[in-house]
Amino acid sequence: MASRFDSVKALVFDVFGTVVDWREGIARDAAVFLARHGRGDIDPRGFADAWRRRYQPAMEQVRSGRRPFTRLDVLHRENLEAVLMDYGLSPGSMSGEELDEFNRAWHRLDPWPEAVAGLTRLKRKFIIAPLSNGNIALMLNMAKRAGIPWDGILGSEVAQAFKPQPEAYLRTAEVLGIQPAELCLVAAHNNDLAAAKQCGLATAFVPRPTEHGPNQTTDLEPTGSWNVVAKDFQDLAHKLGC
Amino acid sequence: MASRFDSVKALVFDVFGTVVDWREGIARDAAVFLARHGRGDIDPRGFADAWRRRYQPAMEQVRSGRRPFTRLDVLHRENLEAVLMDYGLSPGSMSGEELDEFNRAWHRLDPWPEAVAGLTRLKRKFIIAPLSNGNIALMLNMAKRAGIPWDGILGSEVAQAFKPQPEAYLRTAEVLGIQPAELCLVAAHNNDLAAAKQCGLATAFVPRPTEHGPNQTTDLEPTGSWNVVAKDFQDLAHKLGC
Repeated sequence: MASRFDSVKALVFDVFGTVVDWREGIARDAAVFLARHGRGDIDPRGFADAWRRRYQPAMEQVRSGRRPFTRLDVLHRENLEAVLMDYGLSPGSMSGEELDEFNRAWHRLDPWPEAVAGLTRLKRKFIIAPLSNGNIALMLNMAKRAGIPWDGILGSEVAQAFKPQPEAYLRTAEVLGIQPAELCLVAAHNNDLAAAKQCGLATAFVPRPTEHGPNQTTDLEPTGSWNVVAKDFQDLAHKLGC
Repeated sequence: MASRFDSVKALVFDVFGTVVDWREGIARDAAVFLARHGRGDIDPRGFADAWRRRYQPAMEQVRSGRRPFTRLDVLHRENLEAVLMDYGLSPGSMSGEELDEFNRAWHRLDPWPEAVAGLTRLKRKFIIAPLSNGNIALMLNMAKRAGIPWDGILGSEVAQAFKPQPEAYLRTAEVLGIQPAELCLVAAHNNDLAAAKQCGLATAFVPRPTEHGPNQTTDLEPTGSWNVVAKDFQDLAHKLGC
Protein backbone atom coordinates (compact mmCIF):
# COMPACT_ATOMS: atom_id res chain seq x y z
CA MET A 1 0.00 0.00 0.00
CA ALA A 2 1.21 3.51 -0.73
CA SER A 3 2.75 4.83 2.49
CA ARG A 4 0.88 8.10 2.04
CA PHE A 5 -2.26 6.13 2.80
CA ASP A 6 -1.33 5.42 6.41
CA SER A 7 -3.03 8.65 7.46
CA VAL A 8 -6.03 8.52 5.11
CA LYS A 9 -9.36 8.18 6.96
CA ALA A 10 -11.86 8.92 4.22
CA LEU A 11 -12.14 8.28 0.49
CA VAL A 12 -14.28 10.67 -1.53
CA PHE A 13 -15.23 9.86 -5.08
CA ASP A 14 -15.86 11.71 -8.25
CA VAL A 15 -19.11 10.14 -9.49
CA PHE A 16 -20.02 10.97 -13.12
CA GLY A 17 -17.63 8.81 -15.11
CA THR A 18 -15.74 7.45 -12.09
CA VAL A 19 -18.52 5.57 -10.27
CA VAL A 20 -21.30 5.57 -12.88
CA ASP A 21 -21.50 5.36 -16.66
CA TRP A 22 -23.38 8.58 -17.40
CA ARG A 23 -23.15 8.27 -21.22
CA GLU A 24 -24.93 4.93 -21.55
CA GLY A 25 -27.43 5.80 -18.81
CA ILE A 26 -28.46 9.10 -20.38
CA ALA A 27 -28.52 7.54 -23.86
CA ARG A 28 -30.90 4.82 -22.61
CA ASP A 29 -33.45 7.36 -21.39
CA ALA A 30 -32.83 9.74 -24.32
CA ALA A 31 -33.66 6.99 -26.83
CA VAL A 32 -37.11 6.54 -25.28
CA PHE A 33 -37.73 10.29 -24.95
CA LEU A 34 -36.62 11.08 -28.50
CA ALA A 35 -38.64 8.24 -30.05
CA ARG A 36 -41.74 9.48 -28.19
CA HIS A 37 -41.24 12.85 -29.83
CA GLY A 38 -40.80 11.36 -33.30
CA ARG A 39 -37.05 11.96 -33.37
CA GLY A 40 -35.71 8.42 -33.51
CA ASP A 41 -33.24 9.79 -36.08
CA ILE A 42 -31.16 11.46 -33.33
CA ASP A 43 -28.29 9.34 -31.98
CA PRO A 44 -29.04 9.02 -28.25
CA ARG A 45 -25.32 8.81 -27.33
CA GLY A 46 -24.70 11.97 -29.32
CA PHE A 47 -27.58 13.55 -27.40
CA ALA A 48 -26.00 12.45 -24.11
CA ASP A 49 -22.67 13.96 -25.20
CA ALA A 50 -24.37 17.22 -26.19
CA TRP A 51 -26.17 17.47 -22.84
CA ARG A 52 -22.92 16.77 -21.00
CA ARG A 53 -20.99 19.36 -23.06
CA ARG A 54 -23.12 22.05 -21.44
CA TYR A 55 -22.15 20.86 -17.93
CA GLN A 56 -18.86 22.70 -17.43
CA PRO A 57 -20.00 26.01 -18.98
CA ALA A 58 -23.09 26.02 -16.73
CA MET A 59 -21.00 25.47 -13.58
CA GLU A 60 -18.51 28.07 -14.78
CA GLN A 61 -21.27 30.68 -14.38
CA VAL A 62 -21.27 29.84 -10.68
CA ARG A 63 -17.52 29.39 -10.27
CA SER A 64 -16.88 32.78 -11.84
CA GLY A 65 -19.31 34.45 -9.44
CA ARG A 66 -21.72 35.52 -12.20
CA ARG A 67 -24.41 33.36 -10.61
CA PRO A 68 -25.03 32.21 -7.00
CA PHE A 69 -24.52 28.55 -6.13
CA THR A 70 -27.18 26.52 -7.94
CA ARG A 71 -27.97 22.80 -7.62
CA LEU A 72 -26.90 20.64 -10.52
CA ASP A 73 -30.49 19.39 -10.98
CA VAL A 74 -31.39 22.97 -11.91
CA LEU A 75 -28.42 23.39 -14.26
CA HIS A 76 -29.15 20.03 -15.91
CA ARG A 77 -32.77 21.08 -16.43
CA GLU A 78 -31.78 24.36 -18.09
CA ASN A 79 -29.20 22.56 -20.21
CA LEU A 80 -31.81 20.02 -21.28
CA GLU A 81 -34.01 22.76 -22.69
CA ALA A 82 -31.02 24.24 -24.52
CA VAL A 83 -29.91 20.95 -26.05
CA LEU A 84 -33.46 20.11 -27.12
CA MET A 85 -33.60 23.43 -28.98
CA ASP A 86 -30.20 22.69 -30.56
CA TYR A 87 -31.77 19.56 -32.02
CA GLY A 88 -34.80 21.49 -33.28
CA LEU A 89 -37.16 20.26 -30.58
CA SER A 90 -39.41 22.66 -28.66
CA PRO A 91 -39.26 22.18 -24.88
CA GLY A 92 -41.95 24.84 -24.50
CA SER A 93 -44.44 22.46 -26.13
CA MET A 94 -43.62 19.65 -23.65
CA SER A 95 -44.99 19.27 -20.14
CA GLY A 96 -42.79 20.38 -17.27
CA GLU A 97 -43.37 17.04 -15.57
CA GLU A 98 -42.12 15.14 -18.62
CA LEU A 99 -38.97 17.28 -18.76
CA ASP A 100 -38.42 16.88 -15.01
CA GLU A 101 -38.75 13.13 -15.37
CA PHE A 102 -36.22 13.01 -18.23
CA ASN A 103 -33.93 15.30 -16.23
CA ARG A 104 -33.95 12.73 -13.44
CA ALA A 105 -32.20 10.32 -15.83
CA TRP A 106 -29.09 11.64 -14.03
CA HIS A 107 -30.50 10.07 -10.83
CA ARG A 108 -30.83 6.70 -12.56
CA LEU A 109 -27.30 6.09 -13.83
CA ASP A 110 -25.80 2.63 -13.41
CA PRO A 111 -22.45 2.07 -11.67
CA TRP A 112 -19.59 0.49 -13.58
CA PRO A 113 -19.85 -3.28 -13.12
CA GLU A 114 -17.37 -3.73 -10.24
CA ALA A 115 -18.00 -0.37 -8.53
CA VAL A 116 -20.50 -1.39 -5.82
CA ALA A 117 -18.51 -4.50 -4.86
CA GLY A 118 -15.31 -2.45 -4.66
CA LEU A 119 -16.95 0.29 -2.59
CA THR A 120 -18.38 -2.31 -0.22
CA ARG A 121 -14.84 -3.55 0.44
CA LEU A 122 -13.40 -0.03 0.76
CA LYS A 123 -16.14 0.91 3.25
CA ARG A 124 -14.80 -1.64 5.75
CA LYS A 125 -11.66 0.42 6.28
CA PHE A 126 -12.52 3.96 5.18
CA ILE A 127 -15.35 6.45 5.33
CA ILE A 128 -16.65 6.56 1.75
CA ALA A 129 -18.68 9.40 0.27
CA PRO A 130 -19.28 11.06 -3.08
CA LEU A 131 -17.46 14.32 -3.80
CA SER A 132 -19.38 15.13 -6.93
CA ASN A 133 -20.67 18.32 -8.46
CA GLY A 134 -24.08 16.64 -8.33
CA ASN A 135 -26.51 17.76 -5.64
CA ILE A 136 -27.59 15.77 -2.59
CA ALA A 137 -30.92 14.47 -3.95
CA LEU A 138 -29.27 13.41 -7.21
CA MET A 139 -26.53 11.46 -5.40
CA LEU A 140 -28.88 10.02 -2.79
CA ASN A 141 -31.48 8.81 -5.30
CA MET A 142 -28.74 7.35 -7.50
CA ALA A 143 -27.22 5.49 -4.55
CA LYS A 144 -30.58 4.20 -3.32
CA ARG A 145 -31.49 2.83 -6.77
CA ALA A 146 -28.08 1.30 -7.45
CA GLY A 147 -27.21 0.08 -3.94
CA ILE A 148 -24.14 2.28 -3.57
CA PRO A 149 -23.26 2.04 0.16
CA TRP A 150 -22.08 5.61 0.85
CA ASP A 151 -21.53 6.56 4.51
CA GLY A 152 -22.95 10.00 3.76
CA ILE A 153 -23.61 12.30 0.82
CA LEU A 154 -21.01 15.06 0.50
CA GLY A 155 -20.07 17.18 -2.52
CA SER A 156 -20.90 20.49 -4.10
CA GLU A 157 -24.17 21.16 -2.28
CA VAL A 158 -22.61 20.59 1.14
CA ALA A 159 -19.49 22.59 0.21
CA GLN A 160 -21.51 25.19 -1.72
CA ALA A 161 -18.80 25.14 -4.39
CA PHE A 162 -18.17 23.24 -7.61
CA LYS A 163 -14.96 21.32 -8.29
CA PRO A 164 -12.25 22.13 -9.20
CA GLN A 165 -12.57 25.15 -6.89
CA PRO A 166 -10.43 24.60 -3.77
CA GLU A 167 -13.42 25.12 -1.46
CA ALA A 168 -15.06 21.96 -2.83
CA TYR A 169 -12.16 19.84 -1.51
CA LEU A 170 -11.20 21.83 1.58
CA ARG A 171 -14.72 22.26 2.97
CA THR A 172 -15.32 18.53 2.49
CA ALA A 173 -12.35 17.74 4.75
CA GLU A 174 -13.58 20.35 7.22
CA VAL A 175 -17.11 18.91 7.31
CA LEU A 176 -15.62 15.47 8.01
CA GLY A 177 -13.53 16.98 10.82
CA ILE A 178 -10.26 15.79 9.28
CA GLN A 179 -7.16 17.31 7.69
CA PRO A 180 -6.88 17.52 3.88
CA ALA A 181 -4.04 14.95 4.00
CA GLU A 182 -6.43 12.51 5.72
CA LEU A 183 -8.78 12.70 2.75
CA CYS A 184 -8.22 10.98 -0.60
CA LEU A 185 -10.01 11.82 -3.83
CA VAL A 186 -10.67 8.88 -6.15
CA ALA A 187 -11.31 9.98 -9.74
CA ALA A 188 -11.03 8.95 -13.36
CA HIS A 189 -10.09 12.51 -14.30
CA ASN A 190 -6.56 13.83 -14.00
CA ASN A 191 -7.66 17.47 -13.72
CA ASP A 192 -9.87 16.72 -10.72
CA LEU A 193 -6.97 14.91 -9.02
CA ALA A 194 -4.60 17.77 -9.78
CA ALA A 195 -6.91 20.26 -8.08
CA ALA A 196 -7.33 17.97 -5.06
CA LYS A 197 -3.59 17.44 -4.75
CA GLN A 198 -3.07 21.20 -4.86
CA CYS A 199 -5.32 21.39 -1.76
CA GLY A 200 -3.24 18.77 0.04
CA LEU A 201 -5.48 15.75 -0.49
CA ALA A 202 -4.19 12.28 -1.29
CA THR A 203 -5.13 11.08 -4.77
CA ALA A 204 -6.11 7.82 -6.46
CA PHE A 205 -6.57 7.44 -10.21
CA VAL A 206 -8.90 4.79 -11.62
CA PRO A 207 -9.17 5.04 -15.43
CA ARG A 208 -12.57 4.63 -17.06
CA PRO A 209 -11.47 4.23 -20.67
CA THR A 210 -14.99 4.05 -22.17
CA GLU A 211 -16.60 6.93 -20.23
CA HIS A 212 -16.77 8.87 -23.51
CA GLY A 213 -17.35 5.81 -25.70
CA PRO A 214 -15.09 3.36 -27.53
CA ASN A 215 -12.90 6.03 -29.13
CA GLN A 216 -12.00 7.92 -25.94
CA THR A 217 -8.64 9.71 -26.11
CA THR A 218 -8.53 11.48 -22.72
CA ASP A 219 -7.72 10.29 -19.20
CA LEU A 220 -6.55 6.88 -20.40
CA GLU A 221 -3.39 7.16 -18.30
CA PRO A 222 -2.35 8.99 -15.13
CA THR A 223 -0.71 12.30 -16.02
CA GLY A 224 0.37 13.25 -12.46
CA SER A 225 2.14 11.54 -9.61
CA TRP A 226 -0.97 10.25 -7.85
CA ASN A 227 -0.59 8.25 -4.65
CA VAL A 228 -2.33 5.21 -6.09
CA VAL A 229 -3.24 4.07 -9.58
CA ALA A 230 -5.66 1.15 -9.80
CA LYS A 231 -7.38 -0.44 -12.75
CA ASP A 232 -10.82 -0.48 -11.11
CA PHE A 233 -12.44 -0.29 -7.63
CA GLN A 234 -11.75 -3.95 -6.83
CA ASP A 235 -8.08 -3.36 -7.63
CA LEU A 236 -8.19 -0.18 -5.52
CA ALA A 237 -9.60 -2.14 -2.57
CA HIS A 238 -6.83 -4.69 -2.98
CA LYS A 239 -4.13 -2.00 -3.20
CA LEU A 240 -5.47 -0.27 -0.07
CA GLY A 241 -5.49 -3.49 1.91
CA CYS A 242 -9.29 -3.85 2.18
CA MET B 1 -51.07 2.21 7.82
CA ALA B 2 -52.09 5.82 8.32
CA SER B 3 -53.53 7.07 5.03
CA ARG B 4 -51.41 10.21 5.29
CA PHE B 5 -48.42 7.97 4.65
CA ASP B 6 -49.41 7.16 1.07
CA SER B 7 -47.47 10.19 -0.13
CA VAL B 8 -44.47 9.94 2.22
CA LYS B 9 -41.19 9.25 0.41
CA ALA B 10 -38.62 9.92 3.11
CA LEU B 11 -38.39 9.44 6.86
CA VAL B 12 -36.07 11.75 8.77
CA PHE B 13 -35.19 11.05 12.37
CA ASP B 14 -34.40 12.99 15.45
CA VAL B 15 -31.28 11.23 16.76
CA PHE B 16 -30.30 12.17 20.35
CA GLY B 17 -32.85 10.30 22.42
CA THR B 18 -34.85 8.94 19.48
CA VAL B 19 -32.23 6.76 17.75
CA VAL B 20 -29.46 6.67 20.36
CA ASP B 21 -29.26 6.64 24.16
CA TRP B 22 -27.13 9.74 24.75
CA ARG B 23 -27.37 9.62 28.57
CA GLU B 24 -25.86 6.18 29.07
CA GLY B 25 -23.29 6.72 26.31
CA ILE B 26 -22.02 10.00 27.70
CA ALA B 27 -22.07 8.62 31.25
CA ARG B 28 -19.90 5.67 30.15
CA ASP B 29 -17.16 7.94 28.80
CA ALA B 30 -17.60 10.48 31.61
CA ALA B 31 -16.98 7.79 34.25
CA VAL B 32 -13.57 7.02 32.73
CA PHE B 33 -12.67 10.68 32.24
CA LEU B 34 -13.71 11.73 35.74
CA ALA B 35 -11.91 8.82 37.43
CA ARG B 36 -8.74 9.72 35.52
CA HIS B 37 -8.95 13.20 36.98
CA GLY B 38 -9.51 11.92 40.51
CA ARG B 39 -13.21 12.80 40.56
CA GLY B 40 -14.81 9.40 40.88
CA ASP B 41 -17.16 11.08 43.35
CA ILE B 42 -19.11 12.77 40.54
CA ASP B 43 -22.14 10.81 39.29
CA PRO B 44 -21.43 10.26 35.58
CA ARG B 45 -25.14 10.28 34.68
CA GLY B 46 -25.51 13.58 36.48
CA PHE B 47 -22.52 14.83 34.50
CA ALA B 48 -24.21 13.71 31.26
CA ASP B 49 -27.40 15.51 32.28
CA ALA B 50 -25.44 18.67 33.11
CA TRP B 51 -23.64 18.61 29.75
CA ARG B 52 -26.93 18.08 27.95
CA ARG B 53 -28.65 20.91 29.87
CA ARG B 54 -26.33 23.35 28.11
CA TYR B 55 -27.40 22.07 24.66
CA GLN B 56 -30.54 24.13 24.06
CA PRO B 57 -29.15 27.42 25.46
CA ALA B 58 -26.07 27.08 23.22
CA MET B 59 -28.20 26.55 20.11
CA GLU B 60 -30.47 29.39 21.17
CA GLN B 61 -27.52 31.75 20.65
CA VAL B 62 -27.58 30.73 16.98
CA ARG B 63 -31.37 30.55 16.59
CA SER B 64 -31.74 34.06 17.99
CA GLY B 65 -29.18 35.44 15.53
CA ARG B 66 -26.68 36.43 18.23
CA ARG B 67 -24.17 34.00 16.74
CA PRO B 68 -23.67 32.65 13.19
CA PHE B 69 -24.46 28.99 12.50
CA THR B 70 -21.96 26.85 14.41
CA ARG B 71 -21.45 23.08 14.28
CA LEU B 72 -22.69 21.15 17.28
CA ASP B 73 -19.21 19.64 17.81
CA VAL B 74 -18.03 23.18 18.57
CA LEU B 75 -20.96 23.94 20.89
CA HIS B 76 -20.48 20.60 22.70
CA ARG B 77 -16.79 21.40 23.19
CA GLU B 78 -17.53 24.82 24.67
CA ASN B 79 -20.23 23.34 26.88
CA LEU B 80 -17.82 20.65 28.07
CA GLU B 81 -15.41 23.28 29.37
CA ALA B 82 -18.26 25.07 31.11
CA VAL B 83 -19.62 21.96 32.79
CA LEU B 84 -16.15 20.89 33.90
CA MET B 85 -15.75 24.27 35.60
CA ASP B 86 -19.19 23.88 37.20
CA TYR B 87 -17.87 20.72 38.83
CA GLY B 88 -14.69 22.47 39.97
CA LEU B 89 -12.45 20.91 37.34
CA SER B 90 -10.03 23.03 35.34
CA PRO B 91 -10.22 22.38 31.58
CA GLY B 92 -7.33 24.81 31.09
CA SER B 93 -5.05 22.31 32.81
CA MET B 94 -6.07 19.47 30.47
CA SER B 95 -4.73 18.81 27.00
CA GLY B 96 -6.84 19.98 24.09
CA GLU B 97 -6.54 16.52 22.56
CA GLU B 98 -7.94 14.86 25.68
CA LEU B 99 -10.89 17.24 25.71
CA ASP B 100 -11.48 16.72 21.99
CA GLU B 101 -11.45 12.97 22.52
CA PHE B 102 -13.98 13.19 25.36
CA ASN B 103 -16.08 15.56 23.26
CA ARG B 104 -16.27 12.86 20.61
CA ALA B 105 -18.20 10.71 23.11
CA TRP B 106 -21.19 12.18 21.25
CA HIS B 107 -19.94 10.36 18.12
CA ARG B 108 -19.86 7.05 20.02
CA LEU B 109 -23.43 6.78 21.31
CA ASP B 110 -25.18 3.43 21.05
CA PRO B 111 -28.56 3.04 19.34
CA TRP B 112 -31.54 1.77 21.33
CA PRO B 113 -31.58 -2.01 21.05
CA GLU B 114 -34.08 -2.40 18.19
CA ALA B 115 -33.21 0.80 16.30
CA VAL B 116 -30.80 -0.52 13.65
CA ALA B 117 -33.01 -3.52 12.85
CA GLY B 118 -36.04 -1.25 12.54
CA LEU B 119 -34.22 1.27 10.35
CA THR B 120 -33.00 -1.54 8.10
CA ARG B 121 -36.63 -2.55 7.49
CA LEU B 122 -37.79 1.07 7.01
CA LYS B 123 -34.99 1.66 4.47
CA ARG B 124 -36.52 -0.88 2.10
CA LYS B 125 -39.50 1.38 1.47
CA PHE B 126 -38.36 4.90 2.39
CA ILE B 127 -35.35 7.16 2.13
CA ILE B 128 -34.03 7.32 5.70
CA ALA B 129 -31.78 10.08 7.04
CA PRO B 130 -31.06 11.84 10.31
CA LEU B 131 -32.61 15.26 10.86
CA SER B 132 -30.62 16.07 13.96
CA ASN B 133 -29.09 19.22 15.34
CA GLY B 134 -25.82 17.27 15.27
CA ASN B 135 -23.32 18.08 12.54
CA ILE B 136 -22.41 15.86 9.60
CA ALA B 137 -19.19 14.37 11.03
CA LEU B 138 -20.90 13.59 14.33
CA MET B 139 -23.79 11.79 12.62
CA LEU B 140 -21.56 10.05 10.09
CA ASN B 141 -19.06 8.76 12.66
CA MET B 142 -21.89 7.61 14.93
CA ALA B 143 -23.57 5.73 12.07
CA LYS B 144 -20.32 4.15 10.90
CA ARG B 145 -19.51 2.87 14.41
CA ALA B 146 -23.02 1.63 15.16
CA GLY B 147 -23.99 0.33 11.71
CA ILE B 148 -26.89 2.75 11.23
CA PRO B 149 -27.80 2.38 7.52
CA TRP B 150 -28.70 5.99 6.63
CA ASP B 151 -29.17 6.81 2.94
CA GLY B 152 -27.49 10.16 3.53
CA ILE B 153 -26.66 12.56 6.35
CA LEU B 154 -29.03 15.51 6.54
CA GLY B 155 -29.79 17.85 9.45
CA SER B 156 -28.69 21.15 10.87
CA GLU B 157 -25.39 21.49 9.03
CA VAL B 158 -27.01 20.87 5.62
CA ALA B 159 -29.97 23.14 6.46
CA GLN B 160 -27.74 25.67 8.27
CA ALA B 161 -30.43 25.95 10.92
CA PHE B 162 -31.20 24.27 14.24
CA LYS B 163 -34.55 22.64 15.00
CA PRO B 164 -37.19 23.71 15.86
CA GLN B 165 -36.63 26.56 13.41
CA PRO B 166 -38.84 26.02 10.33
CA GLU B 167 -35.81 26.19 8.00
CA ALA B 168 -34.43 22.99 9.52
CA TYR B 169 -37.47 21.04 8.31
CA LEU B 170 -38.30 22.94 5.12
CA ARG B 171 -34.76 23.02 3.72
CA THR B 172 -34.44 19.30 4.38
CA ALA B 173 -37.46 18.64 2.15
CA GLU B 174 -36.05 21.03 -0.45
CA VAL B 175 -32.64 19.32 -0.46
CA LEU B 176 -34.39 15.98 -1.00
CA GLY B 177 -36.36 17.51 -3.89
CA ILE B 178 -39.70 16.64 -2.29
CA GLN B 179 -42.67 18.47 -0.77
CA PRO B 180 -42.94 18.88 3.03
CA ALA B 181 -45.97 16.54 3.03
CA GLU B 182 -43.79 13.85 1.42
CA LEU B 183 -41.41 13.99 4.39
CA CYS B 184 -42.08 12.48 7.82
CA LEU B 185 -40.24 13.33 11.02
CA VAL B 186 -39.80 10.47 13.47
CA ALA B 187 -39.07 11.69 17.00
CA ALA B 188 -39.42 10.86 20.68
CA HIS B 189 -40.08 14.54 21.45
CA ASN B 190 -43.51 16.10 21.07
CA ASN B 191 -42.13 19.63 20.63
CA ASP B 192 -40.00 18.56 17.65
CA LEU B 193 -43.01 16.90 16.03
CA ALA B 194 -45.17 19.98 16.65
CA ALA B 195 -42.66 22.19 14.83
CA ALA B 196 -42.42 19.72 11.94
CA LYS B 197 -46.20 19.48 11.64
CA GLN B 198 -46.42 23.27 11.58
CA CYS B 199 -44.18 23.12 8.47
CA GLY B 200 -46.47 20.59 6.79
CA LEU B 201 -44.45 17.44 7.47
CA ALA B 202 -46.00 14.12 8.42
CA THR B 203 -45.16 13.02 11.97
CA ALA B 204 -44.42 9.79 13.83
CA PHE B 205 -43.98 9.55 17.60
CA VAL B 206 -41.87 6.81 19.15
CA PRO B 207 -41.56 7.21 22.93
CA ARG B 208 -38.20 6.62 24.58
CA PRO B 209 -39.32 6.47 28.21
CA THR B 210 -35.83 6.10 29.70
CA GLU B 211 -34.01 8.75 27.65
CA HIS B 212 -33.68 10.82 30.82
CA GLY B 213 -33.34 7.85 33.14
CA PRO B 214 -35.77 5.66 35.09
CA ASN B 215 -37.75 8.56 36.58
CA GLN B 216 -38.50 10.34 33.32
CA THR B 217 -41.71 12.41 33.38
CA THR B 218 -41.69 14.02 29.91
CA ASP B 219 -42.61 12.73 26.45
CA LEU B 220 -44.02 9.48 27.80
CA GLU B 221 -47.16 9.91 25.68
CA PRO B 222 -48.07 11.65 22.44
CA THR B 223 -49.45 15.11 23.15
CA GLY B 224 -50.43 15.97 19.57
CA SER B 225 -52.36 14.28 16.79
CA TRP B 226 -49.37 12.69 15.10
CA ASN B 227 -49.91 10.55 12.00
CA VAL B 228 -48.41 7.47 13.58
CA VAL B 229 -47.57 6.43 17.12
CA ALA B 230 -45.37 3.35 17.48
CA LYS B 231 -43.75 1.77 20.51
CA ASP B 232 -40.35 1.38 18.87
CA PHE B 233 -38.73 1.28 15.39
CA GLN B 234 -39.71 -2.35 14.78
CA ASP B 235 -43.31 -1.45 15.54
CA LEU B 236 -42.97 1.62 13.28
CA ALA B 237 -41.72 -0.59 10.43
CA HIS B 238 -44.67 -2.89 10.97
CA LYS B 239 -47.16 -0.01 11.05
CA LEU B 240 -45.72 1.47 7.85
CA GLY B 241 -45.94 -1.85 6.01
CA CYS B 242 -42.19 -2.49 5.77
